[in-house]
Amino acid sequence: MSYHTHGGDVYRNKNVIDFSANCNPFGTPKSVKEAAVQAMEEVFHYPDTDCQELREAIGVYEEVRPEWIICGNGAADLIYRLVLGTKPKQAVLFAPTFAEYEQALEIVNCEVKHYELKEENGFCVEETLLDWITEKTDIVFLCNPNNPTGVLLERKFILEVLKRCKEKNSLFVLDECFVDFVEEPENHTIKDMLKEYPNLFLLKAFTKRYAMAGVRLGYGLSSNQRLLEKIQHCGQPWAVSTVAQKAGIAALKEEEYVKRSMAYVHAQRKKLIKNLTLLGYKTFDSKANYIFFQGEEGLYEKCLEKGILIRDCSNYYGLKKGYYRVAVKLQEENEKLLEVLKACRKDGEKWQKRL
Amino acid sequence: MSYHTHGGDVYRNKNVIDFSANCNPFGTPKSVKEAAVQAMEEVFHYPDTDCQELREAIGVYEEVRPEWIICGNGAADLIYRLVLGTKPKQAVLFAPTFAEYEQALEIVNCEVKHYELKEENGFCVEETLLDWITEKTDIVFLCNPNNPTGVLLERKFILEVLKRCKEKNSLFVLDECFVDFVEEPENHTIKDMLKEYPNLFLLKAFTKRYAMAGVRLGYGLSSNQRLLEKIQHCGQPWAVSTVAQKAGIAALKEEEYVKRSMAYVHAQRKKLIKNLTLLGYKTFDSKANYIFFQGEEGLYEKCLEKGILIRDCSNYYGLKKGYYRVAVKLQEENEKLLEVLKACRKDGEKWQKRL
Repeated sequence: MSYHTHGGDVYRNKNVIDFSANCNPFGTPKSVKEAAVQAMEEVFHYPDTDCQELREAIGVYEEVRPEWIICGNGAADLIYRLVLGTKPKQAVLFAPTFAEYEQALEIVNCEVKHYELKEENGFCVEETLLDWITEKTDIVFLCNPNNPTGVLLERKFILEVLKRCKEKNSLFVLDECFVDFVEEPENHTIKDMLKEYPNLFLLKAFTKRYAMAGVRLGYGLSSNQRLLEKIQHCGQPWAVSTVAQKAGIAALKEEEYVKRSMAYVHAQRKKLIKNLTLLGYKTFDSKANYIFFQGEEGLYEKCLEKGILIRDCSNYYGLKKGYYRVAVKLQEENEKLLEVLKACRKDGEKWQKRL
Repeated sequence: MSYHTHGGDVYRNKNVIDFSANCNPFGTPKSVKEAAVQAMEEVFHYPDTDCQELREAIGVYEEVRPEWIICGNGAADLIYRLVLGTKPKQAVLFAPTFAEYEQALEIVNCEVKHYELKEENGFCVEETLLDWITEKTDIVFLCNPNNPTGVLLERKFILEVLKRCKEKNSLFVLDECFVDFVEEPENHTIKDMLKEYPNLFLLKAFTKRYAMAGVRLGYGLSSNQRLLEKIQHCGQPWAVSTVAQKAGIAALKEEEYVKRSMAYVHAQRKKLIKNLTLLGYKTFDSKANYIFFQGEEGLYEKCLEKGILIRDCSNYYGLKKGYYRVAVKLQEENEKLLEVLKACRKDGEKWQKRL
């Protein structure tokens, strides 16, 4: 089995500004930290296997019934459990997309059909995807906005995929972990379809929205009770720590933090895309809190030398060398990134001239 | 798939003294709580997928090479990953024993051979177990001391099982999560066999030793690199939270706490066994931080009414109604338990007389 290298490794790359992982640039809310401190007074008990209080809080936040919610040790935990619980034989995925879908599918020896997103189309999906979903398709994983490209799917198109999946008896897993960072997320999520479509599983995370990746907390939404039970039983009962449960409950109250940080990210994203383009990098139409772009080979190493960790995307299935992803961070950090990229460009030009 | 109910549910049973889960009665060390608070300052980063610093600390503690250590989101996480990574077709287990081995084995449709531990033998294992391990056996799970009985296996016997497993090409998973609570644990662990036996996987937890069940942290030891890689790849890369990693590193320094609490548990265990016997309950030879005993049916409910949560063991494979497990807790808590059990006995006698 191959194994994918991810971004965010600040442990082997010390003293860098990390643009390789995509969390809220405002950092972990104080209330979340305080809730974790409180939770430590209760950790001599096992965590609540049912995540009852947390699921009720998520239910209010998402306007979804608590019975339709399942919590995991990060959204990635739920991807693995879902795949193990449903054991699909054939799957349809984007290429490129988040690597964990395929990592999980490999464990159950699932055949993976890669729907290639083409650079010439700006990594946008086309209607032809629908034809890929056949009687043989057990599961479809899409990510909206997609990771690493940041490209957003149109709601109308997603609904066509959902309908097609239902017709073909396929499970549709839609990863909405980054949808919160999109402008007007309520116009992009399809959680209003949960009731009508028991073949729909929506994936969401606390990780990015509240900058709490190190806590591990994600959740899934589905009206399909049998599916949720299968997921629950394909792993230990105590997957979600007490710390994560209490931190999650506190996080959901941080409405003002989310509002302010999202507006900030939108403004910084636009600025960053504009400036990357001015530097001569080819950017794509990201609507998320990260930007995907094409640049010279070896840019990852050059940035690292200058104290900036970016995501080298060449190990994504469907991408070759020269693709990168950077998170949208605080203005001063973004400016530092641009400074370093500018210096890299100049070094590159000098080097080009020497040839 | 059936699903096992565990002890420790203080969420559906509020305001009780919990004797149903078996953690260190001294509670979570202050240093562990402080480390968790510190860790919350770093959770905007993803956790270290490699648990490098933690594995090095465990290496020093266990006197084992860090490369031989794998960390998990609790020991239970590792049970599932190990089973998914090795996909055994036939397994040998004790009955009764910890339910998660079988829960995990069900996911991969593994045939389970239950070696019945008999009450008339005090739930001790016999030499005949060796004959159960054949060419067809892919995996053997033993628990030492066993859960829920607390009965300790002799080291000499475990080594025979280990040797037999090697001869028959079987993986031997020995759960030593409770071995720390035994007197002279160094004479009972078989970690000195790791180098010679690549078919050995030892399971250990922070949960019980440091009363940090709600944090989720366990680890496994094996010299078999291929096995460790398989386990690592059968789940997400970020299974162990930053909070758990930092808390674990702090916990390992708590030598004095462990020493004092173990001596305390040994003394309280003896007292508790003696007093349970005096009350007319049939106890077994527990060497762990919990006591397994036989009593009247309905004792669980009676205790609960009186504010005491005990473990009803009737849902363990191989047990029928009337078996219970209680943790060894602080003296005043243990006295309260005995008081309640005494009252239950009297109620029972009255009820008997009424018949």
